[in-house]
Amino acid sequence: MTNSEQSCEPKFFDGDILIKNGRIITVDSQNRIIDNGALLIRSDIISKIGTTSEMADMHACTVIDARGGIVMPGLVNTHTHLPMSLFRGFADDMPLITWLNDYMFKLEARYIGPETVQCGTLLSCAEMLLSGTTTCCDGYFHEEVVAEAVYTSGIRAVLGQGVIDFPAPGIVNPLLNVEHATSYAQKFKNRYPRIRSAIFCHSPYTCSKETLIHAKQAALDTGVLFQIHVAETRSERDQIRQQHRKTTVEYLDSLGILDSTTLLVHAVWVTDADVDIIRQRGSSISHNPESNMKLASGIAPVLDFIRAGIPTGLGTDGGASNNNLDLFTEMDSAAKLHKVHRFDVGVLDVLSVLKMATIEGAKAIGLGNITGSLEIGKKADIIILDTHKPHLVPMYNPISHLVYSATGADVRDVLIDGEIVVKDRKILTLDLDGILIKATEFASHLTI
Amino acid sequence: MTNSEQSCEPKFFDGDILIKNGRIITVDSQNRIIDNGALLIRSDIISKIGTTSEMADMHACTVIDARGGIVMPGLVNTHTHLPMSLFRGFADDMPLITWLNDYMFKLEARYIGPETVQCGTLLSCAEMLLSGTTTCCDGYFHEEVVAEAVYTSGIRAVLGQGVIDFPAPGIVNPLLNVEHATSYAQKFKNRYPRIRSAIFCHSPYTCSKETLIHAKQAALDTGVLFQIHVAETRSERDQIRQQHRKTTVEYLDSLGILDSTTLLVHAVWVTDADVDIIRQRGSSISHNPESNMKLASGIAPVLDFIRAGIPTGLGTDGGASNNNLDLFTEMDSAAKLHKVHRFDVGVLDVLSVLKMATIEGAKAIGLGNITGSLEIGKKADIIILDTHKPHLVPMYNPISHLVYSATGADVRDVLIDGEIVVKDRKILTLDLDGILIKATEFASHLTI
Repeated sequence: MTNSEQSCEPKFFDGDILIKNGRIITVDSQNRIIDNGALLIRSDIISKIGTTSEMADMHACTVIDARGGIVMPGLVNTHTHLPMSLFRGFADDMPLITWLNDYMFKLEARYIGPETVQCGTLLSCAEMLLSGTTTCCDGYFHEEVVAEAVYTSGIRAVLGQGVIDFPAPGIVNPLLNVEHATSYAQKFKNRYPRIRSAIFCHSPYTCSKETLIHAKQAALDTGVLFQIHVAETRSERDQIRQQHRKTTVEYLDSLGILDSTTLLVHAVWVTDADVDIIRQRGSSISHNPESNMKLASGIAPVLDFIRAGIPTGLGTDGGASNNNLDLFTEMDSAAKLHKVHRFDVGVLDVLSVLKMATIEGAKAIGLGNITGSLEIGKKADIIILDTHKPHLVPMYNPISHLVYSATGADVRDVLIDGEIVVKDRKILTLDLDGILIKATEFASHLTI
Repeated sequence: MTNSEQSCEPKFFDGDILIKNGRIITVDSQNRIIDNGALLIRSDIISKIGTTSEMADMHACTVIDARGGIVMPGLVNTHTHLPMSLFRGFADDMPLITWLNDYMFKLEARYIGPETVQCGTLLSCAEMLLSGTTTCCDGYFHEEVVAEAVYTSGIRAVLGQGVIDFPAPGIVNPLLNVEHATSYAQKFKNRYPRIRSAIFCHSPYTCSKETLIHAKQAALDTGVLFQIHVAETRSERDQIRQQHRKTTVEYLDSLGILDSTTLLVHAVWVTDADVDIIRQRGSSISHNPESNMKLASGIAPVLDFIRAGIPTGLGTDGGASNNNLDLFTEMDSAAKLHKVHRFDVGVLDVLSVLKMATIEGAKAIGLGNITGSLEIGKKADIIILDTHKPHLVPMYNPISHLVYSATGADVRDVLIDGEIVVKDRKILTLDLDGILIKATEFASHLTI
């Protein structure tokens, strides 16, 4: 499990980091798997991929021995509310509306400020790093604090400031919601190389028509992703239908919300016609199966999204409605849920699910050209799994194991943008003990 | 993470092992949780449970510091086919009948013998130990080899020799099936303290009426558990209905199969009347949600079983249809699946699910009086979880975390029958490296 560092004289220099002796799952357009593979990183970019023997003469400052494990793209979590991990397990097993109105919104009003947002975000970043997530797409409040915390963790992220039509953390006057989000989006659009800003409208039932239109326009003007919870529950569908005589998707489309820079989160209660609208507009989907199961929201028509060619990624949702951020177990849940739901073992095969958690997720949040697969020229967002474990042996098909057998705890090393951020399961960028102590201290005072 | 060992002079002796500084989840009849708790073990038995301060003066040969983690009963896996982990991931995403007839039965005929049964069993035992399972209920062939391998691992188990009406591993003449199973059951009934023998009829569609009656009578005569796959798929239900004009449960009941020493595995396609029959006969259920999801079999009416007071445990099924033996993620799947299936967040609350994986599972396989909960006088089958991890912090409700946030990889120490079998995630009873090498070697030759 040791990584060796070599002296780096210029005449021998081929790259900064050489990973060797791994089974490389590229998730590229040919879905290539390279047994006993090697991968060279120069600066933040993948510069060569081949077999270890083909690349035997290459030199790099740091050599990482994957020791027969799996080398694959870091996972992409297309929907989180990072600070909410602080509420994990506080309020389980209640309907979404009760959970939101009687617990989460009240807890947020009472406890969420810049300091707690920082604490919760760092906690989530630590969890994501240790379970192999290298990119996330977040929506919350005090998002500038989220951005600074995510920056310190080293994670790649699209971070959306929340817009909602009532007072929320950091938002005393909801009339200034969109202005606040726009100002944040502009400020953080290019502040850090790994971070892109976004605007996150909470939902069509918590934002007025005017707010939705205004926020979408602001996202377009700023050139950032627009995210929104859509058609999550049956009651939301019924409410929108009653108020607007439309499905939720038709309603948003009538406002001009749907285009190729809009990410629709959940999309459980959508019709065949809705799927066609989403496809035509070029919007993307974040599918959150475990949250939808736990909150008894329903089962999204993911097979229809994929069949229609709609970029569809996986999301864990916040830590309070899942209750972890492990995308490996999320893959397992997705693969199994749709099989039993459709009574068809052939649907959501393991490769499709792996793509949702990597390249399709990256596409869904607008980062498909830089991450989500291991290809020359892409950013070096890479994880290495230790497969010398009884639940991963024998290995006939590594992709089957990634979906059905592995968990985030099998991730050994994590590289983002060519930087080693986790080495032998130790986070190099964050003070994990300090974060755990702070989060525990926060929780010790919590009451409702 | 260190355990200390004290000198053990008789005058100071209170017990063999003292576990302290843990949050003890007893899963006893009052569902007591003892914060900062301690637990004393004398020989193989739990002799005292209290707070660490109450038990500060107690001495034991070995002191295990749980360091603020969770101390809980070891998990009970009510349905496995241990050697089948060797086929994990070889044949995914196909219907049960294709999977069985075109892959598993063929692979078994070609590759399964005493040596491979031993190899696969040890592999599964290693996985179970490292994910906190201390008791399992198995059904396979060459079960005497399974029993010897399980014995070396230290796991508590109920192990059933398979009965099926066609040639199977170790069974050249199916007419002698039941005799073979009976002879095994007698031989291993009391051979090892932690192991009980059983008879496992594969299913009502692979065993004739005569075989079923004969095998059940043999189990009764020998005084061992009788296990059978029941109503797993819709096609099985239809076939039995066509042949016998009865539901599968009615059919088995008409043969006198159902009583309080019968474990019905899967029980997906059962009616309300069937549930009532099962309740009246006192039979038990093994619920295998992940296998049922992965094979698209259907969703068992678990809420009805529990409401009727039928002992209902959790099972992973074999490693080839899940594809792991982790009961923590199985708990998560069970809790979430039934919520979304019933559109009701209130069903299968976390405590009910934890009980399925512990005390109810123990009851279902006839071991409720000796394991499945932490109570004075019960066997010391105990696991300790390291909760100093970002996905388990903060902790408002430890049971929520066990069901929704933890995985088997959070298990640090495992004790069975008062013996430490896993310490700091190292298995003390088995040669893990040797097992992994053998299993990998086996797989390298496998073709169909």
